[in-house]
Amino acid sequence: MKKALIFILYFVISACTTFSRPPSIITTGDLGVIIKRAQGGIAIVSWSEKKVLKTISGLGDLSHAALVYSPDQRYAFVFGRDGGLTKVNMVEMKIEKRIIQSGNSIGGAISQDGELIAVSNYEPGGVKIFSAHSLELIFDIPAKMENGFSKTVGLVDVGKRKFVFGLLDANEIWMVDLEDKDPKVLKSATQGRMPYDGFITKDESEYVAGLFQDDGFSVLNLEHGTNKVRRVLENYRKADLKLPVYKMPHLGRWTQIENQVYLPAMGKNAVLVAELPSWKLIKTIELKGQPIFTMKSPNGRYVWINFAMPENHLVQVIDRKNLEVVKTIEVGKGVLHMEFSPKGNEIWLSVRDENRVDIYDTHNFTLKNSISMDQPSGIFFTNRAYENGL
Amino acid sequence: MKKALIFILYFVISACTTFSRPPSIITTGDLGVIIKRAQGGIAIVSWSEKKVLKTISGLGDLSHAALVYSPDQRYAFVFGRDGGLTKVNMVEMKIEKRIIQSGNSIGGAISQDGELIAVSNYEPGGVKIFSAHSLELIFDIPAKMENGFSKTVGLVDVGKRKFVFGLLDANEIWMVDLEDKDPKVLKSATQGRMPYDGFITKDESEYVAGLFQDDGFSVLNLEHGTNKVRRVLENYRKADLKLPVYKMPHLGRWTQIENQVYLPAMGKNAVLVAELPSWKLIKTIELKGQPIFTMKSPNGRYVWINFAMPENHLVQVIDRKNLEVVKTIEVGKGVLHMEFSPKGNEIWLSVRDENRVDIYDTHNFTLKNSISMDQPSGIFFTNRAYENGL
Repeated sequence: MKKALIFILYFVISACTTFSRPPSIITTGDLGVIIKRAQGGIAIVSWSEKKVLKTISGLGDLSHAALVYSPDQRYAFVFGRDGGLTKVNMVEMKIEKRIIQSGNSIGGAISQDGELIAVSNYEPGGVKIFSAHSLELIFDIPAKMENGFSKTVGLVDVGKRKFVFGLLDANEIWMVDLEDKDPKVLKSATQGRMPYDGFITKDESEYVAGLFQDDGFSVLNLEHGTNKVRRVLENYRKADLKLPVYKMPHLGRWTQIENQVYLPAMGKNAVLVAELPSWKLIKTIELKGQPIFTMKSPNGRYVWINFAMPENHLVQVIDRKNLEVVKTIEVGKGVLHMEFSPKGNEIWLSVRDENRVDIYDTHNFTLKNSISMDQPSGIFFTNRAYENGL
Repeated sequence: MKKALIFILYFVISACTTFSRPPSIITTGDLGVIIKRAQGGIAIVSWSEKKVLKTISGLGDLSHAALVYSPDQRYAFVFGRDGGLTKVNMVEMKIEKRIIQSGNSIGGAISQDGELIAVSNYEPGGVKIFSAHSLELIFDIPAKMENGFSKTVGLVDVGKRKFVFGLLDANEIWMVDLEDKDPKVLKSATQGRMPYDGFITKDESEYVAGLFQDDGFSVLNLEHGTNKVRRVLENYRKADLKLPVYKMPHLGRWTQIENQVYLPAMGKNAVLVAELPSWKLIKTIELKGQPIFTMKSPNGRYVWINFAMPENHLVQVIDRKNLEVVKTIEVGKGVLHMEFSPKGNEIWLSVRDENRVDIYDTHNFTLKNSISMDQPSGIFFTNRAYENGL
């Protein structure tokens, strides 16, 4: 009896010792998420250790997936193509909650106060806004047109609790203002056909939408409360408007360096450099292919560019000082996305068709590391948590 | 006997249950450090929860203390006035290591690759460079002049493993290059007397030193390998050069918005707005007092300014759009430092003489929260981990 009790005591104490080991405390400062679309999963990576820490599956259809982080880096909100919205706990490395909020979604944003998650939907067309805490629906904005609903694109946060987005089929830009009790929606005509993506300027004074079926970009001033949109860079592809577009380029905050923007030309092998706020074209820089992402380095000295098929094995780098291409790198087949380490010493490239992520030294443009990964696409480091309008 | 054993069992189990509760896992994403100089300690705070998480003492003399973070946010390196260099573990919230590396130091920097910590010393005058991992001395750069050693100031990181700083007593700017095996030091004359602080421009093309005993600023181009310095803004206080200077203003990356800098005028109640790269003066904005920090908001729309005695109870805000003061706030006595929440929704102000930290809503300039704290000074949030040149 006594022996038995002592044994139990021993067993309980060892069990306690085992389970009471505190979980290793992690920093969120060097984490990132890489979308593994073939698996419907994500890899949580450490950019400082250059390795995968954990793979999480069960996130649904992640083709063209994107994500945003909560301002404290604790959560990632992943927007899947199947309308899935998944809240991932970055410190416990697990899915916290997952809902299917539409039939087809294309991206999302988080309000600058961190309270609201907005999702841009294709089917049914519109934007839905959720509580970042509970993922409960707070506000539904169907993008109603005369006949049916429009797909929405280019959704970004602005101010404290506002969102702006484009209506692909309705040629409009809408701003939803949730700062007061009664949400307001301000509607503007794009003055051009088929806005396909958009971004806000760093100072949040202008929303810029790219146009697919017309030349140039639509610019909405966000400060004066008007809904007047002006068209800029109107003639850059006049002669070539019927050229094939192999893939829609992306627009984002990363195109802006100080008072210049580096915009992927639609259906052209070129980047357009324009000066703000005049939107005067400074230079058209010829490239090897149709640019998809034109991403400035953290210090704003370089712009790294990847391409649509058939040149999606290349990356080119523009030096901002002389507006010339200073480097062309043969990375590998299917370079889909790029992400700089926060201080810009390295850039991570997802090389989908060769099943790896390549890490380049940005100081000398040499390959530093490779991580094997099944068809990687989007790469998102947690320093994005602090960036408005991404 | 049986009862006694059952009691022991019960006791052990409850003890286990109590102690095995895992510590709540923290993110480093919303942390910050506030210097408590009267106690020789720091408070680790959460800006999202708006509270102190832990107080750590034993950091020595923290008057005029500053710190930098490792790029992964795991460590803070605190530079004390007594020559102390303290490595604080932000996740375990404890001192990891502490050395006394000089008799009197004024600040420091971390190399962009995160490997090196450089400390700017007054006594003995020079810069010492340590391993960020072990705090072992790697390179010593005494600031030798004809007679003795110069105090060093305005130390910043540049490139991958370079540092630039001013020599207060020798009227020079030195760049230390540790990228190759053999460190190199490039020396330049400031073309003016007593550099008191300095910063690099966002694109790292220029190092700028403020001058105490002469008018204007010294600008060293870092890209062309020359040591030619040019003087800019040479005449801004010509008539007033003998006016009293109540406190040395600070210079830093935070003064730059796109291609403009907002520089505290020395010994004048004004901010100088200049355009880069021409350094042409655009406007002199009159203020209530002698500015100390001129800090841009994260989106670059506003510049918040605090002051030297006797106006150090005030904060003023400049709107970048019209270059006018749009707000003057009576905060309280001894506003020493300011720090924006990473997305810019809030600003934390240390109000030393009233023993509190005030948190203002930047959207409407109203006081949102106050935290009691004994004589707070510098406030440093972990998003600084990603910023070069801070």
